[in-house]
Amino acid sequence: MVDHEVLLKAGRIKLLLSDCDGVLTDGCAYYSARGEEMKKFSLRDGMGVERLRRVLGVEVGIISGEDSEPLRRRAEKLNITELHAGIRDKATVVKRILAEHKLDPGQVAYIGDDVNDSDAIAICGLSACPADAMPQIARIVDYRCKSKGGAGAFREFAELLISARQ
Amino acid sequence: MVDHEVLLKAGRIKLLLSDCDGVLTDGCAYYSARGEEMKKFSLRDGMGVERLRRVLGVEVGIISGEDSEPLRRRAEKLNITELHAGIRDKATVVKRILAEHKLDPGQVAYIGDDVNDSDAIAICGLSACPADAMPQIARIVDYRCKSKGGAGAFREFAELLISARQ
Amino acid sequence: MVDHEVLLKAGRIKLLLSDCDGVLTDGCAYYSARGEEMKKFSLRDGMGVERLRRVLGVEVGIISGEDSEPLRRRAEKLNITELHAGIRDKATVVKRILAEHKLDPGQVAYIGDDVNDSDAIAICGLSACPADAMPQIARIVDYRCKSKGGAGAFREFAELLISARQ
Amino acid sequence: MVDHEVLLKAGRIKLLLSDCDGVLTDGCAYYSARGEEMKKFSLRDGMGVERLRRVLGVEVGIISGEDSEPLRRRAEKLNITELHAGIRDKATVVKRILAEHKLDPGQVAYIGDDVNDSDAIAICGLSACPADAMPQIARIVDYRCKSKGGAGAFREFAELLISARQ
Repeated sequence: MVDHEVLLKAGRIKLLLSDCDGVLTDGCAYYSARGEEMKKFSLRDGMGVERLRRVLGVEVGIISGEDSEPLRRRAEKLNITELHAGIRDKATVVKRILAEHKLDPGQVAYIGDDVNDSDAIAICGLSACPADAMPQIARIVDYRCKSKGGAGAFREFAELLISARQ
Repeated sequence: MVDHEVLLKAGRIKLLLSDCDGVLTDGCAYYSARGEEMKKFSLRDGMGVERLRRVLGVEVGIISGEDSEPLRRRAEKLNITELHAGIRDKATVVKRILAEHKLDPGQVAYIGDDVNDSDAIAICGLSACPADAMPQIARIVDYRCKSKGGAGAFREFAELLISARQ
Repeated sequence: MVDHEVLLKAGRIKLLLSDCDGVLTDGCAYYSARGEEMKKFSLRDGMGVERLRRVLGVEVGIISGEDSEPLRRRAEKLNITELHAGIRDKATVVKRILAEHKLDPGQVAYIGDDVNDSDAIAICGLSACPADAMPQIARIVDYRCKSKGGAGAFREFAELLISARQ
Repeated sequence: MVDHEVLLKAGRIKLLLSDCDGVLTDGCAYYSARGEEMKKFSLRDGMGVERLRRVLGVEVGIISGEDSEPLRRRAEKLNITELHAGIRDKATVVKRILAEHKLDPGQVAYIGDDVNDSDAIAICGLSACPADAMPQIARIVDYRCKSKGGAGAFREFAELLISARQ
């Protein structure tokens, strides 16, 4: 069961910000002789992006420490315009997005899995991590998904936001 | 053990319709700089398609919300002619297939994993989902496979149809 | 613990024949717009092939229902000359190999995972399957590996043959 | 809980040497018609390399039995200069590295998963293996990771080294 306080917070969310590697993927990259060649994304997470948009009017943004062509193509497919890739300081990007969209922190949720997500998590009103997140992150989020990164975590959090409004 | 009622229903099936992503695959796509590059299919599922055809004379059709070249190549390899890709409204396609093949709903089985499969599931006489289907789907199907999508679910359902006739 | 009778049989083996898909791989193929593009092989299994050769003087052959370029490249890398790909009737190939190498069935082991391996299994003196083999095969083999196909099954069986001689 | 003696040893480490296949990857290679095409690496392990460097000033070296372009590209991305690929005798390489860096064995840690890592493990002051290492290796290391190769093992060991100094 999802904690009552988490559901209350979830009911206020207007924007969902997500890390890429380890959340939208299993944290891995496929290397060929040309270097980083591919990343694996879940189409069920894509259905989550669509449902958030259609059912709740909630948009999704991505803030990734790494920049890669696979991520850019995936964001295009999902019509995600708030794509911030190759970001060293995620907290600053989160603050800028809040200001631009005129949102207060309680209206923004964040899902991440590793130590470079901790500052962004501290800012946002609701936070989550995949089941296989780093322990440093699992300790500080509001909600730990039952699903792993790239295998349902994002979709699980998206459905939590949807069910919180119903 | 498989429920007696499920076996009775399975014994009447003449056509098996399947979703693609999350059933014939693990629901993932491999992205490169060129976009969606690859999908992973189980060859054991392919053996299931062959066995349904040879042992039972049952054909397999695929109805997919997404359209992709990997799916088209996989369907070609399996000699599947009822391939419907990029389908928004799956129920309408199911009804058209029933009319064309002069089948009643009790002769058609459907296996799917996500919310856009629910209407097709409601129409067909027998339904199944992979072990890792979305909860909304797991609640409404006749049979939940022990195997996950892309890792034996389709084959398990195919073998269930075969054993039901023996 | 491995059964005493299995170890006795294992001590007599001079040739190990293996299926490909579902044994040397997880049974999957990666499809792109060009069709079947890639298969995933375990390098630990490759170490098993080398160790069988070096420690026991046991060679490995592959008999696969499917023919594919990835399999041919993998067999080349492992210096496997007994490669039989695209085989409908595996039992006939096994018999021909036995005759050519002047081996009796008790000197040949077979590892397979699906229904088209059953006749070959019936001929060979010792048989095994991966942990995730089809139930029809798991029922008839001498030894069920703890590891899955493509994830250690072949290597586990190879190490069993090695330890049986020590 | 990590053993006290392991933490004491970990506190002295100045260089971490790692095997590639089965440690930085799941031990698999993706074969196409061109042969070995891709390997899958965890970006969380990459974060481990960065954190060892930044937090502890500990460098990472790779000693791999196999040589491959994917490994070379991955090492470049991580700015790893001590890359030794295609090594038959790992122990000799470890000894040469110790001499060049003027380190005693107690200052060097090694993580490996298969029989060709045993001599290197015997030399280094602290050793580890992934959760799914070969039993011959799991028996002789100081620390067995809870995570599997390519799925967090390297990062887990890196974080152990970091926490040992704090």
